[in-house]
Amino acid sequence: MNDSPQPTEATAAPEAALSDWGNVAAGEVMDRLVSLCKRRGYVFQSSEIYGGVGSTWDYGPLGVEMKRNVRDFWWDSMVRRRDDIEGLDAAILMHSKVWEASGHVSGFTDPLVDCRNCKHRFRADVLEAMDEPRCPRCGSRDLSEARQFNLMFKTHMGPVEEEAAAVYLRPETAQGIYVNFLNVLNASRRKIPFGIAQIGKAFRNEITPGNFIFRTREFEQMEMQFFVEPGTDTEWLERWRDERRAWYAELGIRDEKIRIEEHGPDELAHYAAAAYDLQYEFPFGWQELEGIHNRTDFDLSRHEEASGKKLSYYDEEAKERYVPYIVETSAGVDRTLLTCLVDGFREEGEGKGARTVLKLSPRIAPIKAAVFPLVKRDGMPEVAGQVHRGLRARWNVFYDDGGSIGRRYRRQDEAGTPFCITIDGESVEDRSVTVRDRDSMEQVRIGIDRLEEWLAERLEGSQTQL
Amino acid sequence: MNDSPQPTEATAAPEAALSDWGNVAAGEVMDRLVSLCKRRGYVFQSSEIYGGVGSTWDYGPLGVEMKRNVRDFWWDSMVRRRDDIEGLDAAILMHSKVWEASGHVSGFTDPLVDCRNCKHRFRADVLEAMDEPRCPRCGSRDLSEARQFNLMFKTHMGPVEEEAAAVYLRPETAQGIYVNFLNVLNASRRKIPFGIAQIGKAFRNEITPGNFIFRTREFEQMEMQFFVEPGTDTEWLERWRDERRAWYAELGIRDEKIRIEEHGPDELAHYAAAAYDLQYEFPFGWQELEGIHNRTDFDLSRHEEASGKKLSYYDEEAKERYVPYIVETSAGVDRTLLTCLVDGFREEGEGKGARTVLKLSPRIAPIKAAVFPLVKRDGMPEVAGQVHRGLRARWNVFYDDGGSIGRRYRRQDEAGTPFCITIDGESVEDRSVTVRDRDSMEQVRIGIDRLEEWLAERLEGSQTQL
Repeated sequence: MNDSPQPTEATAAPEAALSDWGNVAAGEVMDRLVSLCKRRGYVFQSSEIYGGVGSTWDYGPLGVEMKRNVRDFWWDSMVRRRDDIEGLDAAILMHSKVWEASGHVSGFTDPLVDCRNCKHRFRADVLEAMDEPRCPRCGSRDLSEARQFNLMFKTHMGPVEEEAAAVYLRPETAQGIYVNFLNVLNASRRKIPFGIAQIGKAFRNEITPGNFIFRTREFEQMEMQFFVEPGTDTEWLERWRDERRAWYAELGIRDEKIRIEEHGPDELAHYAAAAYDLQYEFPFGWQELEGIHNRTDFDLSRHEEASGKKLSYYDEEAKERYVPYIVETSAGVDRTLLTCLVDGFREEGEGKGARTVLKLSPRIAPIKAAVFPLVKRDGMPEVAGQVHRGLRARWNVFYDDGGSIGRRYRRQDEAGTPFCITIDGESVEDRSVTVRDRDSMEQVRIGIDRLEEWLAERLEGSQTQL
Repeated sequence: MNDSPQPTEATAAPEAALSDWGNVAAGEVMDRLVSLCKRRGYVFQSSEIYGGVGSTWDYGPLGVEMKRNVRDFWWDSMVRRRDDIEGLDAAILMHSKVWEASGHVSGFTDPLVDCRNCKHRFRADVLEAMDEPRCPRCGSRDLSEARQFNLMFKTHMGPVEEEAAAVYLRPETAQGIYVNFLNVLNASRRKIPFGIAQIGKAFRNEITPGNFIFRTREFEQMEMQFFVEPGTDTEWLERWRDERRAWYAELGIRDEKIRIEEHGPDELAHYAAAAYDLQYEFPFGWQELEGIHNRTDFDLSRHEEASGKKLSYYDEEAKERYVPYIVETSAGVDRTLLTCLVDGFREEGEGKGARTVLKLSPRIAPIKAAVFPLVKRDGMPEVAGQVHRGLRARWNVFYDDGGSIGRRYRRQDEAGTPFCITIDGESVEDRSVTVRDRDSMEQVRIGIDRLEEWLAERLEGSQTQL
C-alpha cells in the first residue's frame, strides 16, 4: 500500500520531557505560543499595521471559532442544561449612578505617582517595591505624592461633554445583573434559589496589563450571580466552587495545574464574606482563572439604597421578605482560551518526527476534523469533497489538498484539530477512510457510512436520548 | 377523554384582519411589542431602576437566547457552511489612526446648533425642517451657527487624559477587518475572492436614536467584507444582494415586507461605487435592514497610505498585483431581532379565543418547545420530566406545570415557542404525547420514541448526511 500515510508519522522521543510543554522550557512557552497564535490565525495584535494598541488583541479565524466554542460550552453548562439559571445580555453603557452605588467611582483605583521631570506616571506600589524610589524612566527624584487613579474608561453620551453626560465602559458585567434582578425575577417567574448568567465585554484602563491575552484592557467576562436565602450562602459557595472546578476538568485542563485558594480575612474584597480563587499554573506562575465569591447582600442593598427601588424578595412559603445573598462565579473568555492553549501546547519529537501540537479538548478545538485527499487524482478529491460536505453540515471541518500528508498533519496539529481523515486509493473502492488521532497519532480505518457517528461520540460525547 | 386540552383552543375570528398584525392597528404595534418584550423578558430598558440610559437596552432571558440564535444563524450561513469566508473578532478599542485614515475623525459628523440661552444642542437639519428657526426647548432665537459634531464616543487609554491617549469606541466593525486583511490572508492561505466576517458591538453617539431597538447608541453588527479582483466587483455586488435577500426569507420574514432599493448617484457614500439597501416595512415605515455596498479599493488604499504597509494582493496565476475591491454586507443583530419580532407579532381571535402570538421562525425562537404535564399527579409529572430532560440535551426546552393548559399555551404563544408538548393520562399508558403547533394551533399525537426526530425535522430542517 504505497499510498499509506503512516510512514511520515513521528515516534515519541525516547528521553524524558524537558517540561510540561514537551521540548520547550517554561520560560519560552509564551513566546512560542504568541508566535504560533499569530502565524496560524488565533490571535493578532490589534491595529498591528499602525504599531498596535497597548494590550488589546484581535482574534483571527481560529481564535474566533475557539472563542465561540468556549462561550457555548459555558452557556450550555450554566444556562441551557440547568433548571435554575436564566441568561441576560445587558448593555456595556450603563447609568453612571450604577457605578457610584457599586463603589467603583470612588474605590476602583490604583495609586499613581507623577514624575515632575518627564511627566510620566507610574504605579506607586511598583515604585515602592524598587530599592531606589526614583523615576524608572528618566531617573529624576522629583516625584509627586501618590494619587488615586480610576480604572474605568470614561466617555460622554449626548452632544455635550459635561460631567452630567459622563458614562463609563463597564469594568465588570456583574452590575448589569444586579440592576436587572427584579426584571428577570418577574419575567421568568423564578423562585429563589436561582441564578442569572451573562457573557459580555468589560473594560479596565489597567496601568500594567500583560502576559499576552491574560490581562488586557478590553476583555470578555462569563459571570453568573446566584441569588440565595441568607444562611444558605456558605453551602452554595462551596457547591459552586466544586461545580466550577469540575467545569475546567471537563474542558480537559490538566488537573495538577489547577488549585483552589481560599481568601484570608485580610485578602477579602469589601463586598465579600468569603471567596475562593480557582488558579492555574501558567508558565509565568500561579494565576487566577476564576473567582467564586460570597458577596452577601452588599450589591442589592447598595442599589436599593441608591435607586430607591425595593430589591428584596418575598418568599411565599416562609411568608418572609429578605434581600437575597449572592454567590458569584466570575470567569473570562480570553483567559479560559489562553489556559486551554497553554495547557495543550507541546513541542514533541525530534528531527523529522518533531512537531508542535495544541492538545485542545475536541469541545473547543476550532476545527473538529480535516479531510485530505491523498493525491489530487484517481477519484480521491471527489470522495474527499463528498466527505467534507457531509461533515461540514454538522461541524467546522477543513479541507486541505496541499503538500504531503505529513505536512498536512503538522498544520492541523498546530491548529489543534483532533482528527484528520485521509481519503486514499482504497477509499474510492471500498468507501473506507483513515482517521488519525492528533494526540496518540494512531490511525484507524473506518467506513464512510460510520464516520459521522464515530466522530460524534468523540466530539460531543454521549447525549441523553429519549 | 376529559383531560384533552383541545376545548380551550381558539378558533380564528371570522372577520378579515385589521392589519398585518391581526387585531392591532399599525400605529399601536410598537407600544404593544415593547410592553410584551418587557413583560416576557425579551428586552428591558438599560439601568431601568435608575431611570434608564438614553437609547440603550438590556436583553432578558428570552432576548439573549434569541440574539444567540440570530448570531448563530448568520455565522453558520456566512462562515461555517461556506468555503470562501473566514471569521474574525477584532477589539472594540482600536488605534486612533484607524479612524483618521477611514475618514471618521473628520467626516463622521452631524451638524449641531447651540441655543445660547438654554445651552442645549439640536441637529441643524431638524431645526431647518421646522418652520420657525428657534430653540425647540426654550423658544429663544439666539442660536449659534451649525457646527460639526463627531458621532464617535471618545475615551482615553493609559493614565493621562491627553490627546495622544485618545481612543474611540469603534462606530463600525468593518475597519477591524480592513486592518487585519493581511494577517487573515497569510494565516488562512486564502486566494481572492474570499471574505472576512465579524460579529461585534459598535457605538454611535446618535443625537436622535429611537424606535425601540431599531436605532440605538450601542448595537451589534454582523458585517462581511468580500475581497475581489477589480472588474468583478459589480458581479459580486449583485450576487451578495441576492444571497442576503434569500437569508431574510430563510429567517421566515414575510416577503412582501422586504424590498431592495438601489442608491442613486447623489445618495452614495464617498467610499461607494454602488450600493443597495435591503429594507423592511416597519410599523413606522420602510427602513434599512442591511446595506450591500461596493466599497471599491477605497478602504485598503486609505489604510495602505496611512500605515505605510502594503495592503495589496499578488495573484499568482495572473502574475499581477492589485489592491482588492471590497463588497460589504452590513447587518445588525438588534435590528434583525426587532424585524423578526415585528414581523411575527399578532393579536388574534376574540373573547376567550383571543391571543397574542410571536410567529418566530423555529430557527431563532428562544424556546423551541415547552413540556406540560396536564395535571400534577397520576404519573404525568414523571413522564413529562423525562421528556423534558431528554429534549433539553439538544434544545432549549421549557417545563411548565402551572395553571390551565390553555393558559400555558397562551404564555408560550407570547414567548414565540413553536411547539407545546402535553403529557396526559393516556401518555402514561401508551407513551404518546399531544404536540400543538403555535401557528395553526393544530394538535397531533406522537409517540415519545419518535418525538426527537419529529422535532428535529421542524426545528432544524434536513441536514446533509453522508
